Amino acid sequence: MKSHTCSFTRNTMTEIVMPNDTNPLGNLMGGNLLKWMDIASSISVMKHTNCLTVTAAVDSVSFREPIHLGDLVVIESFVTRVFKSSLEVYLEVFKRKFDGTPRIKSNSAYYTFVAIDKNGKPIPAAEVIPETEKEKNLYAGAKRRRELRLILGGRMKPEDATELKALFDGGIYQSPD
Amino acid sequence: MKSHTCSFTRNTMTEIVMPNDTNPLGNLMGGNLLKWMDIASSISVMKHTNCLTVTAAVDSVSFREPIHLGDLVVIESFVTRVFKSSLEVYLEVFKRKFDGTPRIKSNSAYYTFVAIDKNGKPIPAAEVIPETEKEKNLYAGAKRRRELRLILGGRMKPEDATELKALFDGGIYQSPD
Amino acid sequence: MKSHTCSFTRNTMTEIVMPNDTNPLGNLMGGNLLKWMDIASSISVMKHTNCLTVTAAVDSVSFREPIHLGDLVVIESFVTRVFKSSLEVYLEVFKRKFDGTPRIKSNSAYYTFVAIDKNGKPIPAAEVIPETEKEKNLYAGAKRRRELRLILGGRMKPEDATELKALFDGGIYQSPD
Amino acid sequence: MKSHTCSFTRNTMTEIVMPNDTNPLGNLMGGNLLKWMDIASSISVMKHTNCLTVTAAVDSVSFREPIHLGDLVVIESFVTRVFKSSLEVYLEVFKRKFDGTPRIKSNSAYYTFVAIDKNGKPIPAAEVIPETEKEKNLYAGAKRRRELRLILGGRMKPEDATELKALFDGGIYQSPD
Amino acid sequence: MKSHTCSFTRNTMTEIVMPNDTNPLGNLMGGNLLKWMDIASSISVMKHTNCLTVTAAVDSVSFREPIHLGDLVVIESFVTRVFKSSLEVYLEVFKRKFDGTPRIKSNSAYYTFVAIDKNGKPIPAAEVIPETEKEKNLYAGAKRRRELRLILGGRMKPEDATELKALFDGGIYQSPD
Amino acid sequence: MKSHTCSFTRNTMTEIVMPNDTNPLGNLMGGNLLKWMDIASSISVMKHTNCLTVTAAVDSVSFREPIHLGDLVVIESFVTRVFKSSLEVYLEVFKRKFDGTPRIKSNSAYYTFVAIDKNGKPIPAAEVIPETEKEKNLYAGAKRRRELRLILGGRMKPEDATELKALFDGGIYQSPD
Repeated sequence: MKSHTCSFTRNTMTEIVMPNDTNPLGNLMGGNLLKWMDIASSISVMKHTNCLTVTAAVDSVSFREPIHLGDLVVIESFVTRVFKSSLEVYLEVFKRKFDGTPRIKSNSAYYTFVAIDKNGKPIPAAEVIPETEKEKNLYAGAKRRRELRLILGGRMKPEDATELKALFDGGIYQSPD
Repeated sequence: MKSHTCSFTRNTMTEIVMPNDTNPLGNLMGGNLLKWMDIASSISVMKHTNCLTVTAAVDSVSFREPIHLGDLVVIESFVTRVFKSSLEVYLEVFKRKFDGTPRIKSNSAYYTFVAIDKNGKPIPAAEVIPETEKEKNLYAGAKRRRELRLILGGRMKPEDATELKALFDGGIYQSPD
Repeated sequence: MKSHTCSFTRNTMTEIVMPNDTNPLGNLMGGNLLKWMDIASSISVMKHTNCLTVTAAVDSVSFREPIHLGDLVVIESFVTRVFKSSLEVYLEVFKRKFDGTPRIKSNSAYYTFVAIDKNGKPIPAAEVIPETEKEKNLYAGAKRRRELRLILGGRMKPEDATELKALFDGGIYQSPD
Repeated sequence: MKSHTCSFTRNTMTEIVMPNDTNPLGNLMGGNLLKWMDIASSISVMKHTNCLTVTAAVDSVSFREPIHLGDLVVIESFVTRVFKSSLEVYLEVFKRKFDGTPRIKSNSAYYTFVAIDKNGKPIPAAEVIPETEKEKNLYAGAKRRRELRLILGGRMKPEDATELKALFDGGIYQSPD
Repeated sequence: MKSHTCSFTRNTMTEIVMPNDTNPLGNLMGGNLLKWMDIASSISVMKHTNCLTVTAAVDSVSFREPIHLGDLVVIESFVTRVFKSSLEVYLEVFKRKFDGTPRIKSNSAYYTFVAIDKNGKPIPAAEVIPETEKEKNLYAGAKRRRELRLILGGRMKPEDATELKALFDGGIYQSPD
Repeated sequence: MKSHTCSFTRNTMTEIVMPNDTNPLGNLMGGNLLKWMDIASSISVMKHTNCLTVTAAVDSVSFREPIHLGDLVVIESFVTRVFKSSLEVYLEVFKRKFDGTPRIKSNSAYYTFVAIDKNGKPIPAAEVIPETEKEKNLYAGAKRRRELRLILGGRMKPEDATELKALFDGGIYQSPD
């Protein structure tokens, strides 16, 4: 396995919201966006690992902006950090109307994947190298988010989450937006 | 709006994993399960509110068990608690193979929705009433999970998250599983 | 193969009518409902037999109520009786609008399946045990419906259909609705 | 509304069985064939009436031949007879493998439709005129099949089904195959 | 491989434009029509060769008529000529509204396929025999169109395209419409 | 309408080949790629015009490389030139396997669109400005390709195609690959 920069793992996915993708109100159905986000972010992982991947976790998805029939959806993603058997991807979703207004950010999220071989066995991945300020912040925060995932999944005790604990002891949580 | 018990909002959705739903390894694609979970849990909200809904947030989804082509997927969901403009749904996903073995739990998750009217405006929903031990625990924990969502979304400062803070000060986090 | 009660084979499938499922008038397309009914009832068979299944026959489907975009469709099914190599499933379809009105029955139908092994060979299934009045009536009528299927498929002569013949000789046909 | 010959309403629909259409065994899923049959036969009705249609009933579908991934499916249909507010369509399904063997008949069925206007109200349709022997037989049998549908739907008493009754009193039921 | 007449390879495919097939304006999306044309014309090739096929080239598709939700689309195709390893199919697309007006031609196109065996290797196909005036014209023009394809694909020099060159030297190009 | 550089209209679309997208051999179905190419290139047009678009023509698509289940497909497109009521888009398709080998070019094509308003009426678009060598070559060749489209569509006589004629009189046709 080879190391790459975060930037090397960047992927852009674009979709137009078709009737097939909408709910009865004519807006993009949340479940469809979740599915597109899953595919888009798994491609970032595959660019880095050259392996097949399975989705391990999804967290912190919040939908703020309704996206309408005919809007363009752009999903940009990159790998933020690699743990022993998992890779965290940060992704941002933008929507753009075709009326001359600029694209606006719809939401962001973290998806976690495991790289696997042909038999479905996990493969350890090489590290990614953050370069920009934003990539470095996301790299640093990844440990905290991982602790949170383990606590919420019942696989870590809150008192052992040293990084996360600091957050509540006067530390500043930095929203990635 | 009328109050209902949590039990009144229960919904069961069953799907067989068809070729169309799988990834290149022949397993249910994570993104498809996220989509099914979205539809299943929105039905619980609609049973309670008799309104259309939009997905507001997804958190704490973790996938532990690969689900294969031909497996049966059962998604059970109910509304755990209602906040001013949002409703949290707890859902459990089970998979069952058709070989005589019992169904096993695949994963659980929380989805948050907003009930809306025909113009897409949020509608305040009536409270749900927890009855069983499990429902009461989930009701109690909903406030903590909401604080966490607000912090992660950058809309609350960690020091204001009184409920969540207690968790790290010797409190016990109770995994819903 | 093990015997089970009819109740053990019960399955509930819920779907929201999405734009993708409608005809040009904005109603659920008949063909889509037929497909959902096929999947829903095959799950009842799989619960009983723990086998893969193939659809053998569909009869007596009548659509009375248009189902609209955004409506909830609930399909409830159970195995009514097992013949040598086939199993009959009875299913009821309900629609529910999200406007406070109660759900109403849309239609009912019988689907017949054959349980098969990995090579596609039919497998004999164990009997199901009816418990309620309704289950007993459906169990009793299954023989008549099977004769009708054989006659209509050209595999039985009308004069040999002793059960069905009685129906026209003053017997009462009991509609399962 | 204008009268047409049965032949005028003939429609041919061809589909290749794609991975998307199969069940976990790699065969065409029964539910998908039911959906294709619905679309194919509704086109026959539209050719005759120049109206939108809704599916009213499906009966006597029996599946004898498994159809595999990559096979060609040909559905041929025509309107057999028009009643006050409904039209019966007879359809035959053929499968063809691409190995030099001739196409073989897979199954046949009757679908019943109602022609409707833009507001969803039923429109009375003109009669169809049978010309060939086969069309005439199907035209003659349509009344019997309609009685059967009404009885099975609980809307006619068996003793009033004069045509169908004759069937069991020494009459010959002619399978359309 | 056996020779067949062009007429033997004729195929008719009919589809109703469903919500799923439209763009945000409610018209059949160009991309969906391209996909249907691909399937329809590949069936003509399979009828002739009894082999699986892969699409090799598409050219000269022009869309003149918007096709609306609920319209009927009829695609008629046949093999025009066979080259060493490729077969050209001519196809015409018609749309029909259900308001009593006759069907009108929407567009025509040429798709080129290669017949392949189970391992994906090209198989030489037997010739097709044109019978009608139209089939003979299309057979004659196929060589010109093939030269054009080779030039546009950078695999032939314009000065070697003897047939096509004649076209510009006072020859008459005969549009197949 | 505002002018933009070709580069401003660039769009990247990425897809993983899912089981749903393949033909019975397990390769990406040509028709599906044609559909993705249609969506990808229409986004380039929308970026330039801020309007809805309809596909007007497709030409010179040739498929050289089979693309397999699980491969990544990347479609890159930009507007090459604007004519009175139509815009030509050039697009390149790349496939990438996840085995460490670099991505390879699968094929290229030209799609032509018309920008339309909400009533479906064509809207004249502003010019695009080529900057790189490749963009300038494609801009220059667009006139020739347009003449060819008009001739093949029967709307121009070969002798009037002055640009194209030069091609056969010793001119060099430059393949865009």
